[in-house]
Amino acid sequence: MKNRLGNLKKSLPKHRVDAFLISSVSHISYLTGFSHFSTEEREAYLLVTRKKNYIFTDGRYSEAVKKEIKNCALVELGRGVSFGEALGNIKKTEKIRTLGIEENDLTVSEFRTLQKAGFKTTEVFLESLRIIKEDWEVKHILAACRLSDQAFDHVLKKLKTGVSEKEIAWEMELFIKSHGGQLGFESIVAFGKNSSVPHHHTGETQLGKKDGSFILLDFGARVRGYRSDMTRTIFWGKASEKQKKIYQAVFGAQKKAEEYITNNISKTVLASEVDRVSREYIKKEGFSDIPHSLGHGIGLEVHEAPYLSPRSKHGLERGMVFSIEPGIYTPGFGGVRIEDLYLLQKKNLKQLTGAKKGLIEL
Amino acid sequence: MKNRLGNLKKSLPKHRVDAFLISSVSHISYLTGFSHFSTEEREAYLLVTRKKNYIFTDGRYSEAVKKEIKNCALVELGRGVSFGEALGNIKKTEKIRTLGIEENDLTVSEFRTLQKAGFKTTEVFLESLRIIKEDWEVKHILAACRLSDQAFDHVLKKLKTGVSEKEIAWEMELFIKSHGGQLGFESIVAFGKNSSVPHHHTGETQLGKKDGSFILLDFGARVRGYRSDMTRTIFWGKASEKQKKIYQAVFGAQKKAEEYITNNISKTVLASEVDRVSREYIKKEGFSDIPHSLGHGIGLEVHEAPYLSPRSKHGLERGMVFSIEPGIYTPGFGGVRIEDLYLLQKKNLKQLTGAKKGLIEL
Repeated sequence: MKNRLGNLKKSLPKHRVDAFLISSVSHISYLTGFSHFSTEEREAYLLVTRKKNYIFTDGRYSEAVKKEIKNCALVELGRGVSFGEALGNIKKTEKIRTLGIEENDLTVSEFRTLQKAGFKTTEVFLESLRIIKEDWEVKHILAACRLSDQAFDHVLKKLKTGVSEKEIAWEMELFIKSHGGQLGFESIVAFGKNSSVPHHHTGETQLGKKDGSFILLDFGARVRGYRSDMTRTIFWGKASEKQKKIYQAVFGAQKKAEEYITNNISKTVLASEVDRVSREYIKKEGFSDIPHSLGHGIGLEVHEAPYLSPRSKHGLERGMVFSIEPGIYTPGFGGVRIEDLYLLQKKNLKQLTGAKKGLIEL
Repeated sequence: MKNRLGNLKKSLPKHRVDAFLISSVSHISYLTGFSHFSTEEREAYLLVTRKKNYIFTDGRYSEAVKKEIKNCALVELGRGVSFGEALGNIKKTEKIRTLGIEENDLTVSEFRTLQKAGFKTTEVFLESLRIIKEDWEVKHILAACRLSDQAFDHVLKKLKTGVSEKEIAWEMELFIKSHGGQLGFESIVAFGKNSSVPHHHTGETQLGKKDGSFILLDFGARVRGYRSDMTRTIFWGKASEKQKKIYQAVFGAQKKAEEYITNNISKTVLASEVDRVSREYIKKEGFSDIPHSLGHGIGLEVHEAPYLSPRSKHGLERGMVFSIEPGIYTPGFGGVRIEDLYLLQKKNLKQLTGAKKGLIEL
């Protein structure tokens, strides 16, 4: 952890700033090892200057922070001292003029506070801070993948006529939590036509009789802070020819993306190109375009850099972990998505999620 | 729901803006009734103009939004059209000049997009949009309170030597979820000295033998989107005189706050005054100041207006639901917090949480 903060500090001149104000919770967690701040409310800031590191938080966290974050000075907010005042004091002592900020995380109100305190701010792009995973991080992601693989096998046995989407999601959660994990994110369970909504909200819809309807399961686990993400679409009974054709097209689109990366493994592959290859395959097969991006990086957050999308600027490099998840969705009929996680290694693309993905008819 | 959007629209002239750009998820959910957007990532915006309402989201949500949000036009992002471009088009058609924004929610990046699109922005304070609860909202909060009361009774039976904080938190979660609720937030379970950290991170600490150590439980349920929040501190065995003194001081501080509100029920009580009364009582009793605010409103979010804190500008009014939660924390020794939810009614302050709170020695 110390190294991470040290490396970031070394990059101050490159970013042409005197200090970084880190506000995103995952970055704070990544840099300090302290992972207990809420992601729903602003509870902390990390200030990295040439000389020191400061963690700003309130009285609810002071004791824990003092104990667990060794290389940062604690600035306790809320007792008289406001965030702006506290920052202003450090600005003076350390002669900070230019402050690097995360513009895609900091709010306009916070920005105004910095302006009032006299800072000149510059946007710094730190999204690639966590983009290359260390070996121990991959290990945690892999552990999360193993757990979701097992949860998938477990849940297959729980599918029966009359069971609801919510009940299946709960079975998944129970399995993951009673095996030492947390949910990676809120599971998506979509029966029948509901599968045509890429982010269907798991509800009360029940499985009917075995008529071949779609069952889409998109879920993940979290182990030691690191997440997995996987989607499987299976059939409740015999799939029709039309359904099989859709399934094979999605399966093929995922394969195309894998192959494109593998065939170009010695170069830096553009994430946008991978997205394009998969997308074009689906259109060539006669289906409508994927209504979302092809994939995303994953780690402390479920969606993080690199992004595999048409507008992405990322190049894929060794040590990156990301999803490939094409999908075809027909409103009123249903949809298929297949999603796996991959680690890009020197000589190959290693799939991390392991649940079976041939066409499954239950 | 239609009324809520209509009322907001009527307030455009008062706020001196041509349109509101609503970005906070709870507000979008409150105004549209659609509650499936993630709170962890930006997935939607709501634009309320004089003539129309627009919901901006991406392909993952289009189908669901079309079905469930009737009074808003859907603007699908991601397929060629960017957020800035889409907004710019509406700006032209509807001749919008001044745009009201939530500066404490919108990011600096988003703000720059608005600037590029030519908008003049004004901060609008919409935090009081949800501050007065309708009767049916109170009903849902009350249902969440009932569920947490029951969870508390249930969990008392699960306390035994050797059980860990995490196991107790899981028992709580299991109870709440298997009774149709969701967690209101991540439960805090703190044994012994851990209770001196107001936001202790529930961990592996186990209950020892009955030596009178503190057990602090801070948790809540969520029912139909609405949350409860309650803290109880109990004793594992006989409490010492010192512990009893702390407990009585906290109990008294909560009572002082209640009485202050009740005695001034016919006027508009300042939230900051309630905070002061309770805080001063604790100091007068010889303990150190509460290291957090006295309370907060609750509803779709676990922390929302009104805030009961020294700097709060809120006046307490009929129909508000909020917590009163004084605490005394002694590092290395332990802490006591007692928290309940209240509804301010015309003639009285109604306590919504119902779990017993006399000194409990197990």
